[in-house]
Amino acid sequence: MDYVKDGAEIYRRSFATIRAEAALDGLPADVAGVCVRMIHACGMTDLPADLRYSDDVVAAARGALRAGAPILCDAKMVASGVTRSRLPADNEVLCLLDDPRTPDLARDLGTTRSAAAVELWRDRLEGAVVAVGNAPTTLFHLLERLDAGWPRPAAIFGLPVGFIGAAESKEELARDPRGVPFLTLLGRRGGSAMAVAALNAAADPKE
Amino acid sequence: MDYVKDGAEIYRRSFATIRAEAALDGLPADVAGVCVRMIHACGMTDLPADLRYSDDVVAAARGALRAGAPILCDAKMVASGVTRSRLPADNEVLCLLDDPRTPDLARDLGTTRSAAAVELWRDRLEGAVVAVGNAPTTLFHLLERLDAGWPRPAAIFGLPVGFIGAAESKEELARDPRGVPFLTLLGRRGGSAMAVAALNAAADPKE
Repeated sequence: MDYVKDGAEIYRRSFATIRAEAALDGLPADVAGVCVRMIHACGMTDLPADLRYSDDVVAAARGALRAGAPILCDAKMVASGVTRSRLPADNEVLCLLDDPRTPDLARDLGTTRSAAAVELWRDRLEGAVVAVGNAPTTLFHLLERLDAGWPRPAAIFGLPVGFIGAAESKEELARDPRGVPFLTLLGRRGGSAMAVAALNAAADPKE
Repeated sequence: MDYVKDGAEIYRRSFATIRAEAALDGLPADVAGVCVRMIHACGMTDLPADLRYSDDVVAAARGALRAGAPILCDAKMVASGVTRSRLPADNEVLCLLDDPRTPDLARDLGTTRSAAAVELWRDRLEGAVVAVGNAPTTLFHLLERLDAGWPRPAAIFGLPVGFIGAAESKEELARDPRGVPFLTLLGRRGGSAMAVAALNAAADPKE
């Protein structure tokens, strides 16, 4: 079979295809870099139309990571996908979904485990980088806690996926990011692979 | 904020939305179940048009897993996403990308690490369930080895994503599955979240 076997060449051609097809022109250069990696992770060049972001989101996330900030993830797949060699300060990558306290918190608060795990972020949230790649309830719960005066993360990559609450939670993040730099994709699309791609690109400008 | 917080209700409404919107009618019931979970993982109800499969792929994968077959994955995110509680026989979930032998194999074979890791599958491949959620070169390399007479897996979930080789490798799998039950999605779309969703659905019929 005839196919490209050189990893570096595959990357080069992939990113060239994406940059040729995707409408990246209106985006700040560093946000475009993040969007290219998100497109690379899902195979769809039409993401820019649904992308919403603060102009400073990549700078804020990158600066926080350089200063040693942890990455708080809603799902184990997100935590698993972060490329450790791209992290500038051997940053901690945390997913607390399986913490033994999470099921009790979920019951007490009457919400999902994914939302309840946010309660365990509180002490780490100040200046952290947040990545939501699965559960709309995680993002909703975080926004509620920010409204209640919780410490502010450095940046939120809000990319939950699906049919119930995903579009609404991302619209709320884009409508009022509560003063926190953010990046999101309106609508149903999102997911762990896309959140990981955004994080990996924000962590390190290298394509 | 007003949103659904009951996890079971979120699942129920999500799957109801998917079943109402997606054109699942032509699919065997068990393949439809897999497709519903794939749609759930990516937020796109138009997957059925691009889905290709053997009618027996879910039965073959489920039977193999019940008999204790390992799951061979191309990417750590895929391995990480498999819900262990859905596996019927505490099945092993393997990703050999980081095996110390993989870089040397990649150099010797003049291919990617993702393809080279397939070499390390050989002793485990007979009757295994294969999940490719990232690299087209993994799928191409596996098909080449099957053509060379390697042992046959029980089923291949071939869902690499992207711009260079993804569409071509999946088309080749669909064109001639080499007698191995398979499921794939034509075109550029795919990815680790979709591969995980397919695996989790094949492992356990529970929605």
